[in-house]
Amino acid sequence: MKTIAVDMDGVLANVFEQYLALDEKHTGRRKSAEDVRVIPEMEAFARAREYVLSSGFFRNAPVIRDSQNVLCRLQQVYDVYIISSAMEYPNSLAEKYEWLQEHFPFISWQKMVFCGSKRIIRADIVIDDHTKNLDCFLGVTYLFSAPHNHFVSSEKHIRVHSWSEVAEILL
Amino acid sequence: MKTIAVDMDGVLANVFEQYLALDEKHTGRRKSAEDVRVIPEMEAFARAREYVLSSGFFRNAPVIRDSQNVLCRLQQVYDVYIISSAMEYPNSLAEKYEWLQEHFPFISWQKMVFCGSKRIIRADIVIDDHTKNLDCFLGVTYLFSAPHNHFVSSEKHIRVHSWSEVAEILL
Repeated sequence: MKTIAVDMDGVLANVFEQYLALDEKHTGRRKSAEDVRVIPEMEAFARAREYVLSSGFFRNAPVIRDSQNVLCRLQQVYDVYIISSAMEYPNSLAEKYEWLQEHFPFISWQKMVFCGSKRIIRADIVIDDHTKNLDCFLGVTYLFSAPHNHFVSSEKHIRVHSWSEVAEILL
Repeated sequence: MKTIAVDMDGVLANVFEQYLALDEKHTGRRKSAEDVRVIPEMEAFARAREYVLSSGFFRNAPVIRDSQNVLCRLQQVYDVYIISSAMEYPNSLAEKYEWLQEHFPFISWQKMVFCGSKRIIRADIVIDDHTKNLDCFLGVTYLFSAPHNHFVSSEKHIRVHSWSEVAEILL
């Protein structure tokens, strides 16, 4: 059974919406996706670090469309692991664990990984929204579309725009 | 640079001492290492699960002798990661993070991994006290001696009894 490593932020959890919502609360104006395209979140939002460190940032992130349904089906034919870079923000550890339990109850604790660098992970297939995380993998790598990677060239990686597209390719 | 994956409980953190101390508190008698040899902690101590779930169990574990000194030296010649099975006890996530920060401040957050199963980890060298964690690795595997693995046959793995022995082999 092939192993799939699935990233969390920007792939399952819509943290971008969290940045947008908190930014709107502070500035009184909602940025559009076009406003922040190409720009890493940390530069796109002046108070990004404050937002990330605020209680509930990860716990209350909306679920990315179709991810629950497709991941549940993928799990029947692949060995699915959720791999999240959580160590930079230790407050996120408990929030991410609870979020996964609520929204992906079919993912057991055996299949969760919270790490710093992803260089230590071994998988046949990887789905991530950051090329820096995909570049170190030897297997098949999918770049999940996000505003910050909109113009990123993905010669080494296969771009996917949605979970329904992932389903079409992998199921 | 070769990658070393180092387990935490039983290799860096003396959780066995935590079991012994809590058991003594409850029973009024301190078990000897001989009393619990060969037996997994969960069977050796009647209230093991209660102990593991209690606040401070992981946070207050003593450091295993010489591990700080040797790991610091290993880090100069290897890419060292700390890989801990933390997901079964989510209360341990924050405690383990704080414990590492206190006792191993030279290990950056990039090099910490909290997981469920270790099958997803890729490393050249692994040090762990459980054969079930070592069996899935392709690289060189070291079984770190602990009371529960005292009579475990280690044909596939190289047994090491202490961190000074690890230093002799790897440095």
